[in-house]
Amino acid sequence: MLLSFGYAGKTYPVNPHESEIHGLKTYPRVGDIPEPVDFATISVPAQAVPEVVEECLAKGVKAAQILTAGFREISEEGERLERQVARTAAKGIRIIGPNCFGVYCPGGGVTILPGSYLPKESGPVAFISQSGGYAIRVPRRASGLGIRFSKVISYGNACDINECDLLEYLSEDEETRIITGYIEGVKDGPRFFKLLQEISKTKPVILLKGGLTRSGAIAVNSHTGSLGGQEEVWDAVFKQSNAIRVNDHEELVDNTLAFLHLAPQRERQVCAVGGGGAITVTAADICDRVGLSLPLFSDELQKRLLPIIPRVGASARNPVDVGSPGPPPSMLRGVMEAVLSDGSADTIIIDEIESAATGPQSEMAQVLVDIKQRFGNPIVMVLPVEAIDTDNIEREDTRRKTRDYYLSQGIPVFLTLARAARAIANLDSYYQRRDAISSLPDPA
Amino acid sequence: MLLSFGYAGKTYPVNPHESEIHGLKTYPRVGDIPEPVDFATISVPAQAVPEVVEECLAKGVKAAQILTAGFREISEEGERLERQVARTAAKGIRIIGPNCFGVYCPGGGVTILPGSYLPKESGPVAFISQSGGYAIRVPRRASGLGIRFSKVISYGNACDINECDLLEYLSEDEETRIITGYIEGVKDGPRFFKLLQEISKTKPVILLKGGLTRSGAIAVNSHTGSLGGQEEVWDAVFKQSNAIRVNDHEELVDNTLAFLHLAPQRERQVCAVGGGGAITVTAADICDRVGLSLPLFSDELQKRLLPIIPRVGASARNPVDVGSPGPPPSMLRGVMEAVLSDGSADTIIIDEIESAATGPQSEMAQVLVDIKQRFGNPIVMVLPVEAIDTDNIEREDTRRKTRDYYLSQGIPVFLTLARAARAIANLDSYYQRRDAISSLPDPA
Repeated sequence: MLLSFGYAGKTYPVNPHESEIHGLKTYPRVGDIPEPVDFATISVPAQAVPEVVEECLAKGVKAAQILTAGFREISEEGERLERQVARTAAKGIRIIGPNCFGVYCPGGGVTILPGSYLPKESGPVAFISQSGGYAIRVPRRASGLGIRFSKVISYGNACDINECDLLEYLSEDEETRIITGYIEGVKDGPRFFKLLQEISKTKPVILLKGGLTRSGAIAVNSHTGSLGGQEEVWDAVFKQSNAIRVNDHEELVDNTLAFLHLAPQRERQVCAVGGGGAITVTAADICDRVGLSLPLFSDELQKRLLPIIPRVGASARNPVDVGSPGPPPSMLRGVMEAVLSDGSADTIIIDEIESAATGPQSEMAQVLVDIKQRFGNPIVMVLPVEAIDTDNIEREDTRRKTRDYYLSQGIPVFLTLARAARAIANLDSYYQRRDAISSLPDPA
Repeated sequence: MLLSFGYAGKTYPVNPHESEIHGLKTYPRVGDIPEPVDFATISVPAQAVPEVVEECLAKGVKAAQILTAGFREISEEGERLERQVARTAAKGIRIIGPNCFGVYCPGGGVTILPGSYLPKESGPVAFISQSGGYAIRVPRRASGLGIRFSKVISYGNACDINECDLLEYLSEDEETRIITGYIEGVKDGPRFFKLLQEISKTKPVILLKGGLTRSGAIAVNSHTGSLGGQEEVWDAVFKQSNAIRVNDHEELVDNTLAFLHLAPQRERQVCAVGGGGAITVTAADICDRVGLSLPLFSDELQKRLLPIIPRVGASARNPVDVGSPGPPPSMLRGVMEAVLSDGSADTIIIDEIESAATGPQSEMAQVLVDIKQRFGNPIVMVLPVEAIDTDNIEREDTRRKTRDYYLSQGIPVFLTLARAARAIANLDSYYQRRDAISSLPDPA
């Protein structure tokens, strides 16, 4: 995986039965490597792991990731082996895992076990994951939306380095602006809570907590041998720490996208633009339900909008109904200019204007990017991936290219309006509560 | 639109300025058509509509759809014109519209205004829509999931035939098994409620009600001049009528898919199968939150599963964790056979087993279809469309073909597990309540 990802440093395979692996000279034991070693990846069977960790310590290896599973999560014997590894770690080698996929750090040229095709570029998002599966699924999905990562750490059973250590590290990591995570159990509740509270003052922490329901808690126990915890307790943790709670990996990616592209905004006023009455009606319902404010437009602004939109089958109120999901680009330009120069709204959500998906070079795409650059206001797109006929595949290709173009221009693109609205509402709530907390008098 | 959709009957264009349109002889007025006429589509400017409707009545036309907008929804003058049309209708011609896209009825060879590319085949689902935009968006999205329609009626301002008439008609329409709808306002509340109650005893009615929030109600008023209604009142309508409530058009399609493929099931017991710990943990959380029951597996069943799944990094509990999102097809076969022959669960949800997306001819696809045919139990697939990189477009193509194959074999495919779970929970709740209602003693 290291070789195919293009790791530029020296790599020393260790295996007692081979003399060469992938063209690299292979050593029977760690101690036989002639040069100093920084970092080890261990994937021998569980029974052999403690001894290999001891050898790494003796060799002066600073840290190791143990990919092998079959420890605490399956048996008492596994738990005993894991404790043995932890005791060695305490003597001077830091351990990630066992039962994990390790570290993806594009800056350092390393990737997780199944991550050869993850992007080579770094970005401002970190993801810590007690799950190996999510450590690949989340960055893969996220990378399709232009999200790039500083570090992804699959930490598994966390016999040494745990979620708190990782949060603490990432809070100080200059490369990381947004911290995201998938958590099942927490080793040290008070420390975890205190860290969330502290870090949330400067960096958003977006967390998917697995195992909060009865069925989920049973599954968590089989997975990492953790206790799921009570939903009420976790509700309080999220509220009091201002960490951002998400309920599935789709929401985790949506929220990350919002934090990546949208700046803090006091009392955001949204203008939604759609093509069709029902589309704007349900857009209004969806925004209202998550608490996004759609201001009423003044008579003056409505008068400016009326000559721009069709005379019938349209609406100059908010949401603006441009009459059809495929309006002329000049109409969309006129609407956006009128609304933003009036100042009634500061954020525009374009809800499935279909012709906005006709390619990055299209006039429609240029209108959106031009308005974004001239006014500097947040523009949010909703481009669905739901016309899923097999004979529409070329259209899907164009849509994806258009999406990439918008993302490259700082216009976040969500798959449904409901998902966009929830993510923006979470973002606004985070910054509002952060402001409120920072304006409290110092208790000392 | 009629011609390009392939309407097989006779078509008479009427236009005072042309003698031929699309190669068809064109008549200056309706009265000039030499033969009897069944149905008229009217799209002249609003001011001229009442006169044309009168001419249709005089000609003996039985019904007409008025596509023209600019009536009650925009002005008092428009309202006056609409009342005039309604008065003519009362004399013996039935009207759909105005301000609508008309009727899509593949059996009769007719389609709505923008619907030339809708499927030519009929199916068991009806959709009534106060919105024209949704009358095209919903069948288009739905048809990508193999859903076929008996009738789609965009009825707009409903100056004559309204939502109640349509519900009544569809309740008796033998072609229609599932009724879906987008509703903004209702003309006759008591009749509507009574119809919902009655129809729900035999056919599911899935409704998206727009305009229930403050912002939504304002938008509804601009759209069809309806009153949105209070959320509390509508909550009661849904509960007491057993109509199925959905909040957006994605949910409407999801629920339709569930009703189409899944039979009524008493106390459904779900087994979820995923590849990876976190995936099964969040699957358990998602099912639990919507009230789907994931039974605990007996020790005996777990013992039968353990030799089938990987020794480590997997779980024989429910959800079953097969260790990786790409397990060997034989492993999935073994798991499904063990669970279904044990009888602990009756419904299997396969959550994003990625290799299940490697083409309709793949061994994995054949395993699923084979199990479905042999056991007859509901199998539900979750295949995401979220690996949305531009360079993954071929993979997306394969995925779509696989999805089509599963759908053709009676295996519903949802885009996310959360959406699948909500739809199945709604289906179960509908049938449970229908059973409970039908077992009540007759009040007479």
